Amino acid sequence: MSSSPADVDATSNTFPLQWEVGWTKLETDTPERFVPAQVPGAVQLDWARAEGWEPYWIADNWKQYEWMEDVFWTYRCVLQTPELKPEQERKAAQKLFLRMDGVDYRFRVSLNGSLVREQEGMFAPVCVDITDLIHPAGKGENVLTVQVFPAPKSHREAQNRAQANQSCKPAVSYGWDFHPRLIPLGIWQPVWLEVREGRHFRHWDTDYTLSDDFSRAEISMDICIERDKKADRENCGGAELHWQILDETGTAVLDQKLAMEQHDLLPRLKGTVQNPRLWWPHDQGEQPLYLNRIELRSESGELLDVHEQRIGFRRVRLVMHEGAWDSPEAFPKSRSNPPITLEINGRTIFCKGANWVSPEIFPGLLARETYATQLGMTRAANMNLLRMWGGAPVQKASFYELCDELGIMVWQEFPLACNFYAGTREYLRVLQNESEAIVMKLKPHPSLVIWCGGNELFNAWSGMTDQSHALRLLNSVCFELDPERPFLMTSPVDGVGHGHYVFRDPESGQEAWEVFQKAACTAYCEFGCPGPASREVLESIIPSAELWPPKVGTAWETHHAFGVWMQSSHLYVDVLEHYFGPSDNLDVMIERGQLLQCEGYKGLYEEARRQKPKSSMALCWCLNEPWPSAANNSLISWPSKPKPALAAVGQACRPVMASARIRKFQWGEGEIFDPELWLLSDSAEVRPRRQVEVWLEHAGTSTLLLTWNVPAAEANTNTQGPRIQYALPMPSARGNSAAAGSSDVAAADVKRFDLVLRAKDASGFAMHEQDSRYTLLFVPGRKQRRNPRSMN
Amino acid sequence: MSSSPADVDATSNTFPLQWEVGWTKLETDTPERFVPAQVPGAVQLDWARAEGWEPYWIADNWKQYEWMEDVFWTYRCVLQTPELKPEQERKAAQKLFLRMDGVDYRFRVSLNGSLVREQEGMFAPVCVDITDLIHPAGKGENVLTVQVFPAPKSHREAQNRAQANQSCKPAVSYGWDFHPRLIPLGIWQPVWLEVREGRHFRHWDTDYTLSDDFSRAEISMDICIERDKKADRENCGGAELHWQILDETGTAVLDQKLAMEQHDLLPRLKGTVQNPRLWWPHDQGEQPLYLNRIELRSESGELLDVHEQRIGFRRVRLVMHEGAWDSPEAFPKSRSNPPITLEINGRTIFCKGANWVSPEIFPGLLARETYATQLGMTRAANMNLLRMWGGAPVQKASFYELCDELGIMVWQEFPLACNFYAGTREYLRVLQNESEAIVMKLKPHPSLVIWCGGNELFNAWSGMTDQSHALRLLNSVCFELDPERPFLMTSPVDGVGHGHYVFRDPESGQEAWEVFQKAACTAYCEFGCPGPASREVLESIIPSAELWPPKVGTAWETHHAFGVWMQSSHLYVDVLEHYFGPSDNLDVMIERGQLLQCEGYKGLYEEARRQKPKSSMALCWCLNEPWPSAANNSLISWPSKPKPALAAVGQACRPVMASARIRKFQWGEGEIFDPELWLLSDSAEVRPRRQVEVWLEHAGTSTLLLTWNVPAAEANTNTQGPRIQYALPMPSARGNSAAAGSSDVAAADVKRFDLVLRAKDASGFAMHEQDSRYTLLFVPGRKQRRNPRSMN
Repeated sequence: MSSSPADVDATSNTFPLQWEVGWTKLETDTPERFVPAQVPGAVQLDWARAEGWEPYWIADNWKQYEWMEDVFWTYRCVLQTPELKPEQERKAAQKLFLRMDGVDYRFRVSLNGSLVREQEGMFAPVCVDITDLIHPAGKGENVLTVQVFPAPKSHREAQNRAQANQSCKPAVSYGWDFHPRLIPLGIWQPVWLEVREGRHFRHWDTDYTLSDDFSRAEISMDICIERDKKADRENCGGAELHWQILDETGTAVLDQKLAMEQHDLLPRLKGTVQNPRLWWPHDQGEQPLYLNRIELRSESGELLDVHEQRIGFRRVRLVMHEGAWDSPEAFPKSRSNPPITLEINGRTIFCKGANWVSPEIFPGLLARETYATQLGMTRAANMNLLRMWGGAPVQKASFYELCDELGIMVWQEFPLACNFYAGTREYLRVLQNESEAIVMKLKPHPSLVIWCGGNELFNAWSGMTDQSHALRLLNSVCFELDPERPFLMTSPVDGVGHGHYVFRDPESGQEAWEVFQKAACTAYCEFGCPGPASREVLESIIPSAELWPPKVGTAWETHHAFGVWMQSSHLYVDVLEHYFGPSDNLDVMIERGQLLQCEGYKGLYEEARRQKPKSSMALCWCLNEPWPSAANNSLISWPSKPKPALAAVGQACRPVMASARIRKFQWGEGEIFDPELWLLSDSAEVRPRRQVEVWLEHAGTSTLLLTWNVPAAEANTNTQGPRIQYALPMPSARGNSAAAGSSDVAAADVKRFDLVLRAKDASGFAMHEQDSRYTLLFVPGRKQRRNPRSMN
Repeated sequence: MSSSPADVDATSNTFPLQWEVGWTKLETDTPERFVPAQVPGAVQLDWARAEGWEPYWIADNWKQYEWMEDVFWTYRCVLQTPELKPEQERKAAQKLFLRMDGVDYRFRVSLNGSLVREQEGMFAPVCVDITDLIHPAGKGENVLTVQVFPAPKSHREAQNRAQANQSCKPAVSYGWDFHPRLIPLGIWQPVWLEVREGRHFRHWDTDYTLSDDFSRAEISMDICIERDKKADRENCGGAELHWQILDETGTAVLDQKLAMEQHDLLPRLKGTVQNPRLWWPHDQGEQPLYLNRIELRSESGELLDVHEQRIGFRRVRLVMHEGAWDSPEAFPKSRSNPPITLEINGRTIFCKGANWVSPEIFPGLLARETYATQLGMTRAANMNLLRMWGGAPVQKASFYELCDELGIMVWQEFPLACNFYAGTREYLRVLQNESEAIVMKLKPHPSLVIWCGGNELFNAWSGMTDQSHALRLLNSVCFELDPERPFLMTSPVDGVGHGHYVFRDPESGQEAWEVFQKAACTAYCEFGCPGPASREVLESIIPSAELWPPKVGTAWETHHAFGVWMQSSHLYVDVLEHYFGPSDNLDVMIERGQLLQCEGYKGLYEEARRQKPKSSMALCWCLNEPWPSAANNSLISWPSKPKPALAAVGQACRPVMASARIRKFQWGEGEIFDPELWLLSDSAEVRPRRQVEVWLEHAGTSTLLLTWNVPAAEANTNTQGPRIQYALPMPSARGNSAAAGSSDVAAADVKRFDLVLRAKDASGFAMHEQDSRYTLLFVPGRKQRRNPRSMN
C-alpha cells in the first residue's frame, strides 16, 4: 500500500530546492560537470539547455539524445532545512519529510551520503522521514542526491519497444509510429520538504457505495496514523479526528468527530450522505464535487494534520448491451461477449471520445495549462470519454482534476502496451508497487470509470493471455483497492474492435466506411483516419528546402509521413492521388488530406453511433500527439493546435443529430446515390417530433431531395429513416460529363458535392442546430472504379 | 487463510465420538427426539434410518425429504476427553483441539453451552483449541453440539436452483435434470479430537517452480507456529525444524534443519530438488510422488508436531494452440481467443475426459472405494482429465489422492453454477473463506491442473460477467495462494463449446455428428449423448408395473427419462423411433438407446480429436451420476455401473487409433457412403508407418474397401487420409431393397452394418490393437430422409 497522494499544489510548507544535474558512464562515478536542472523536468532538457541545442522537435534533432539513455544521471541540491520544534510537554517533536511525487525511472536517493530510498518505477511516490539524517543548522550542508539509472532495457540487440517489456516504463518512448525514439529520464514530478507533527496521517483511503435508488452514499474512511515510536503510549490517546464532507457551498453534508483511544492507530470511520448530488459526464448532467476533509487534532485542540481530497458521487458499471444475451445461439455454445456498455448512475451512456496519448514526450513538461486547453477542446467536440492508452505514462494529478470538473470520463490503462510482459518475480514486484500507487492516487476521481491492464495485450504482437501473471496481478490490485470500478485486462476484449487506421486501404482498396458498415462490434475503441498537419506546424518542423514535395528520407519521414505502418503511412500520397489526382502544391495537398480526415472520421463516428445499442463506444485513435507529426491520425497537432478534423468530429458527436449512412466517398456518372437517413440521440431527454430536410449542394446550387418527418422517440434512442435513391449526377453537374473516362484521375475532373441534413421542428421552423454536412466526390463520366483486390 | 487441511486417515490421536441428531422448527428450541447419527453422513440419512424408510433412490421416495430442508438440526455427543500433560520444565502444556473437516452448510458449534464456532460454508474446516472449555475429568460431562441451519435459500417463491445463488452451497441438490430436489445437510466430513503440544504448526504452505529445463524444483515452505501465549518467550527459541522431501523409496532428495530463533513464528524455508522425477498424466508418463514432511522438535529433541503431505512435480500452463494468433485477421480487430490448450512439462496434451458430477447425492456417503472404482474406469477408458463441475461439491481428499496416483488430471470448479451470484458483502465474505480453504486443501495435488470459477456463468441463464465481484475475487484468491496454476473465470470461455446434448435434435433434425463436424471450437468441454440405464438399474428404481412401456407421470419421469430438457429428454423415444421404428419391449429399447449412445459418443470424441491442434479437449457430459437415472448422458449409472458407452468412449480415446469421419448415422439405397479416414495420435512417441484396412461388414459378410498406407508422423500428430466413396448398399444387402420406401420406418426394415478399420504394421502384419468399429444403419430402398427443419 502506498502512502496517500500528495496534493502538490498545497505548498504552504515546502522549501525551494535548487537542483543541478550531471552524468557518468559508471554507476559509482561522480559527474565531472553539473548543469542547472529544472525540477520537475527531464535530464535531456537540462543538458540540451546547457549545451544550447536546437529544439528536439525540429527535423531529426532527437537523434542527438540517444546516448543519454545509457548513462547514469545524478541530481544534486543543497537543502535549506527548516527549524523543527522539539518534543514539548505532551507533544512529540516535529518531523521533516522528503516528498518526491515521481522520478523517472529507476533511482536512488541519498542524503549526506546515506541511502534514503532505492526504487524502480516512476509512479510510486516517495515520502520519507529524514529528521534523523539531516545535520542541525550550522553543522554542515545537507546534500540531497538523486541518481537516475539508465533507461530499462530487457535486451540490447534491437532498439525497439520490446526493450520495455520487463519494466513499468511506458513503452511509447522506445519508438512508435507517432513518437521518435527518445526515452525521458529524470525527476518529472515535484520534490519538496514537509514539516509534520510527530502525530500525523500516514495513509487514508475513502470508499463509498450508492444505494440502489441513489438516495444515499454510504462512505467509509480507513486511516493509518503515524506516531513517534519513542513516545509510544503518550501519543495516541486523547487526540480527535474530525471528518467532514463539504458541498460546493461549503456546507457540511457529513460531519463526524471521533475521540481516539490510546492504541487506535488504524481507525475506520463510517458515515452516510443523504441525497448526494450525482456526478455525470458533461453531456448527461452536472458535475457536483465535494470536499472530503479529515483533521487530526491533539487533546488540546491543536491541528496536527489535515487531508483534503475532492470527491464526487456516481455509480459506474459495465453492463451487457440490449440483446447481448441472445448470442451465442447455436450449439456448441460459447459464452456471450463481455460487457462493454458503460452505465453511469443507472443510465446507459454511449461513449464518444478518443485515445489520449501524452501531449509531451517529456512527462516533466506536462502542465495544467496544456491539459486545460486540450480537455476544453475535447469537451467542445462533444466527447465524453478519453481512453488513456497504456503505451503512455499515467498523467499528472491536474489532468484528472480537470476531467472531474469538465465531466469527461476517463478509461485509465496501466503502463503495458503491445509487448509480452513476462511475469518474472522482479517485474511483478515493481508492477504491484506501481499499480497500487496509481490506484490509490486516482481512485478518488469520479471521472475515472474504467481500469484497464493495457493496450492490445491479447493480440499476436503482444502474446499475453488471460493467464498472464501481470494481468491477474492487476485484477487483484484493482479488486482489493477499488472493487467498485470496472476492470478490463486489456483492450480489445471480445467483441470490441481496434482499427482500421486508414481512410482507404491502399492494398485492398476498401474504404473505412465500408469496413465499419459491415462490422458489428460492441465498441470501437480505436479507429484512425490520417491527415496532414497544418502548414504552420509543418514549417516549424521541416526545413524549408524539404517542404515540397514530401519525400522519404527527409524530415517528413522522421515526422511520420512515410513508412511507419505501411510504406505510405501516415501521409498516404497514394490515397490522395487515387481520389484527387496529383496535388500541385503543399496547400492543395494539405487541404485534400484534411478533407479526407474530416469526412472519414465523421463517417466512422456516426456509423459507430448508428449501431447502438450493440455498439456503445466510438473512440478514435488518437486525440493528440506528444510532438509535432507531419501526418498522423491525431485530431490535435502538437502543441495543442487543432486540425479541421476536430471540429468535424465535434459535429459527428452532437448529442442529437441527423446522420446519413453513405456507402462510399467517390461516386460516378449514373450511379444511384443512396444514403440512408438516421436520427441519432444519446440525449437523456425524450426527443420530440422534428423534420429533416435533405439537400444536395453543388457549385452554389441546392436541390431538396426529401423531407423526413421524424417521429418522437424515447431518450437515448436512434431512429432509422428512409433510404434515398438518387441517380447522379447532381443537376448542376449535368451536361458536363465528357471529360473523364480513363482510369487516371485528373484533379480538374473531380467535383465535390455536399449532402446536407437540415433540422426543423415539427412545424417546419428552423432549429438552432447546425446542419449535418457531408462532402463527397463526383467524377463526371466515370461509372465506377474499384481496385480489383477489393475485399468486397 | 485457513489452517492446513487435516489428513483424516491419520487417526492416531483421535477419540471415537457417538453422535445423535434431532430437529426443531425454531432455532432456539431443543429437539424432542434424538436418533442415532452417523458421522460423516447426513441428517436425512439418519432420520430415514430411524424411521425405517425405503431407500430414497426408489421411485419418488425423495419427496419424503422435502420438509427437512427447512428445519434446524442439532447433533449432540458426549466427548471422551483425554488426559492432557500439564506444563512442565521448559515445556508448555498440551492442548486439546476440536477438528471438523466439513459441516454442511451453515452451523454453530457449542461445547458445554459455550459457542465454539459459527460458520457458513461446508468446505472450510474447523480447528479450534477447546482446552479451556472442557470440564476436567470427573467434573461433569463434556457435551458437544452442532446445530445445522436450514438449507440456504435466497428466495422462497420458487423451488429451484436459483435459491442457491447467495451461498456456496452446491446448486445441484436444489434440482437439476439428473438430480432430484434433495438438499443434503449435516456433518459430511470427519470430526475428531486431537491432542497437540503447546508448540505446534498452525499453518503450512508449500510452493515450487520448476526451472525452464525441468532439471530443478525450487521449493519454498511457509510455516506458522503456534505457541502458548502465557509462556511466550520460553517457547520459541531453541526449537528445531526438520524439513525433508522423500522419494518413493524413502530417500531424502531434500533434507534441511533450521534452528529457531526466539520470536521466529513465521519461518520460511527454501530448498532445491535436483532432477526431480516429473509427474505426468497416465497416457504421457509416470506418476512419481514425493513425501513433503516437516517436523517441529523441542530443544531436547522431542517431537512436537509433524506434517506430511504428498506432492508431485510438474509444470502446468494453458497455452495458445498452433495458429491461434492468426485470428482475428481483419479490421476492426478483436482479441485472439483465450488459451485452452493444456501443456504439462512443456508438452501439449490433448485432454480426453468427462465432467464429473458427485457420485452421491449425500456428500457424507462419498467413499474412497467409490472413487477408486470410478477413477479406475476413467483411466481404463483412456481418459486423462476430469472436469469437476461447479454445480456439485468439491470432493473428499481421497479423490484427489487417487487422481495423483492414477495420473488423471483434474479441472476443479468452485461451487458456482448456472446462477447469478450477486456480489453482496456477505456472500463474498463466505466465498472468500470457502475458496481459500479449497485452494489450500487441494493445491498440493499435482493432478489438479485448472481452477475455474464455475459452470456457464457467462451465459444468459446465469447472467454473470467478467466484472462480477465473485469471479474477480476467485481470480484474486487463486492468484495470491496458487499463482502457478491456470485460472478460468468460467466454462465456456470464448472459443470453447458446451453442448449439444442429443444424438439427434428432435426439433431441427440435426445429428450431433454433423453439428460437431461444422463446429470449430478450441475445446469441447461439454457434450452429451443420452442413453437408457441397464435393465438391472431400471428394475431397482422403477416399480415393475411401470417398467413397460415408459410413460410420463411414472418413476421413469422422476428419474429423468422425460421432460427435463425438452419433452422427450433424456430417453428420447421419438429419436429411437425415428431410426428404428417402435420397440417391442424394454430390452430392445435399451439396446437401441445404448447403441445410439455408444455410436454418438464415439463420433463426437473422435471428431474433437480430428480437429486438433485447434481443438484441445473432449470432455463429455457426463461421466457419472449421483443417483440412478432411467436415462441420462452419463457413462456410468449409479452406483458405479458402467453403461456400454463407457467402453465405446474408451475405444474412441485410444492414444493412437484409426478413425473415420462419417457424415451421418443412417444411410439409404444408392447413397455414396463417404467416410474420411484419419490416423489420430496423442502419443508422445513418434508414430511409425502402418497400414489401415477398411472393411464393410454386414450380415456376416466382410468387404475390404481399401488399404491406406499411413506415413510415419511426429509424436502427438494426426494424419488425414483418403475419403472413401462407396455406393450403397453393401453387397450382402443387395437385391433386398423392395421392402421400404415409405416415410415410416418399420423396425424390420433397418439393417445395421459396420465400418471396421483394422491396423497392420508397415509390413502388413496384424497389430495387437483393437479395431475401430462403427455401427451404422442402412434402410433398403430408401434414398434419404431429412427433417425439413434441418439447419444444414
